[in-house]
Amino acid sequence: MADRDARSGEDRLPTGIPAVLRWEEPPEGPVVVLLDQTRLPAEEVELVCTDAAALVEAIRSLAVRGAPLLGIAGAYGVALAAVRGFEVAEAAAALEGARPTAVNLAVGVRRARAAHQEALARTGDTRRAADAALAAARALHQEDAEASARMAGHGLRLLDELLPAGGHRVLTHCNTGSLVSGGEGTAFAVALAAHRAGRLRRLWVDETRPLLQGARLTAYEAARSDMAYTLLTDNAAGSLFAAGEVDAVLVGADRIAADGSVANKVGSYPLAVLARYHHVPFIVVAPVTTVDPDTPDGASIEVEQRPGYEVTEVTAPQVPVAGAGGGIPVAPLGTQAYNPAFDVTPPELVTAIVTEEGAVSPVTGEALAELCARSRQVTIS
Amino acid sequence: MADRDARSGEDRLPTGIPAVLRWEEPPEGPVVVLLDQTRLPAEEVELVCTDAAALVEAIRSLAVRGAPLLGIAGAYGVALAAVRGFEVAEAAAALEGARPTAVNLAVGVRRARAAHQEALARTGDTRRAADAALAAARALHQEDAEASARMAGHGLRLLDELLPAGGHRVLTHCNTGSLVSGGEGTAFAVALAAHRAGRLRRLWVDETRPLLQGARLTAYEAARSDMAYTLLTDNAAGSLFAAGEVDAVLVGADRIAADGSVANKVGSYPLAVLARYHHVPFIVVAPVTTVDPDTPDGASIEVEQRPGYEVTEVTAPQVPVAGAGGGIPVAPLGTQAYNPAFDVTPPELVTAIVTEEGAVSPVTGEALAELCARSRQVTIS
Repeated sequence: MADRDARSGEDRLPTGIPAVLRWEEPPEGPVVVLLDQTRLPAEEVELVCTDAAALVEAIRSLAVRGAPLLGIAGAYGVALAAVRGFEVAEAAAALEGARPTAVNLAVGVRRARAAHQEALARTGDTRRAADAALAAARALHQEDAEASARMAGHGLRLLDELLPAGGHRVLTHCNTGSLVSGGEGTAFAVALAAHRAGRLRRLWVDETRPLLQGARLTAYEAARSDMAYTLLTDNAAGSLFAAGEVDAVLVGADRIAADGSVANKVGSYPLAVLARYHHVPFIVVAPVTTVDPDTPDGASIEVEQRPGYEVTEVTAPQVPVAGAGGGIPVAPLGTQAYNPAFDVTPPELVTAIVTEEGAVSPVTGEALAELCARSRQVTIS
Repeated sequence: MADRDARSGEDRLPTGIPAVLRWEEPPEGPVVVLLDQTRLPAEEVELVCTDAAALVEAIRSLAVRGAPLLGIAGAYGVALAAVRGFEVAEAAAALEGARPTAVNLAVGVRRARAAHQEALARTGDTRRAADAALAAARALHQEDAEASARMAGHGLRLLDELLPAGGHRVLTHCNTGSLVSGGEGTAFAVALAAHRAGRLRRLWVDETRPLLQGARLTAYEAARSDMAYTLLTDNAAGSLFAAGEVDAVLVGADRIAADGSVANKVGSYPLAVLARYHHVPFIVVAPVTTVDPDTPDGASIEVEQRPGYEVTEVTAPQVPVAGAGGGIPVAPLGTQAYNPAFDVTPPELVTAIVTEEGAVSPVTGEALAELCARSRQVTIS
């Protein structure tokens, strides 16, 4: 069961954003506390989850979202079931099924479950098995935060190298900050590091149609971090480039093919083309796990088409429901829409890929493979 | 006074769209009938204006909009005042003041007023002076329709030359059809001509943030014209180019500098860069009057910045008013927005400029000047 609880001030990240997910142990028993992202940016409301079912509901309703964060939420959900004495296998299955296509969610759930099973088999003690599950969740959380910090460090070094004059004016797309991460995120974490180092002049925030993650979430993260930021429609980025107002583009990645092709939120590829035309660096920031060696190139990436009503209707938290997608129709009824979830940027348009293990530039299949091999060594050692 | 009157079927343009503006003479006296564009695409409602004051209100409320159409509306407004025996100078001043920055509005008003004054001075007969004002309005309307038809003809010939295989897949931005014109418009008129000739495979319609003229108006025009069309977010155009799904881009123009730089709705320039990167023709369709010989180049064009709330808030006809701009906030309160009304595409990215006097390609200052000189000869002769 989840209680709603509006909090302020305490338990904030260094960014000034309330912790998006945390484990707490009040006298009534352990809980997972989530920032309800469906209420942003209008309200900061926390959901207090006392069992895995509440977490499942939070995942389904998108109160918690973003690949790395979903993995962490799934792991804590298993720990919560174990610590509170519920059936762990059942909770794990329900958590995995909450968003079946979210790979990180399944990975997080399985990691905590494996730790639980291993400890149970080894000690026969349900209490120690529950502790092991919680330790696994905490470790995943911590690793993700550390990976963010390392990406931010590598990314800022690269920015400073590419733009020795400082006063970086960075354009970003979609939402890649602490709302999707156990730490401070990917592309946004680099901009934040530049801000803390006093070298970010401005963050240009693409609104990111159709779901407006830039307007709703990145602008919120930037505002809470006291960054100088300006929101724009995605199609206004061209004017900024033409006016010489963009020094670098920083984006995340959904998946990176073995040849360095980058699948990311739709609208990334046009920015890469504009950046090339204007001789501006286009930098992708993503953890090594985003590189998929089984996908040889960009053409092999299947692009998910999302429902047309995301384009033909306008939605906002306070908008009364009217159309098929729960929003207000802004196009004639029956209008067909082309609505790809992401687009693919070929490696020749990517200046660098920054990971927690370092940056690859120029982007080649060989350099990426080497980076991934190094990462596996680190993990094994 | 304006009456609202929902009509259907009769008085439709060849496109299947109700006439956006017409003069009628029912027994109760002459009226100007307008399609209320603020109600599109949800409803087709007509406004019946019985005096110039009603037209002023319709212009102010954007029920009638678009540069050429405003000129025509202004001219008919003067005629309406004259025919109904009102003070013509007063009506003309009120009409011109309804949208002071709309140059075409003032030009149309002055043309009808000059015809009225000339006839009155010549004949001393108010009835014949009123007839002269109405004749001037009708002539302007007719000329604009003819210019549209000629642009469509030249544009289609160019498309067929550039794309001999036929089956054109055309991408367009913003709204350039009969809703802004006395005829069938500019860029849209070319796509419509291709459709009628059986050579339009698909019209890709950019939604055109922030005001969604593509989703609301161009999709409406395309639907009413039985065209195969698909709506997309502006940032999804990149994926279409990458997939080889765009054969040509057709856009209008707000102003064309003497060197061929084109100011048009924000989002046009990124399309021109994408078109160049993918070797796709980028074609501008606009009447000769759009060329401004007093603006030497793109850098001399001052770009109007529009209110930030167009970006930070979502509006739709049925959305309850909440924010400063009358919409629902989708970004944190206090978010600053960059919201240029248009962008500037340099001549080297424009494959051709199509006018009613013919096409210019490649686009050079000399070729444009020659075209304008030819146009003046035609006007004088």
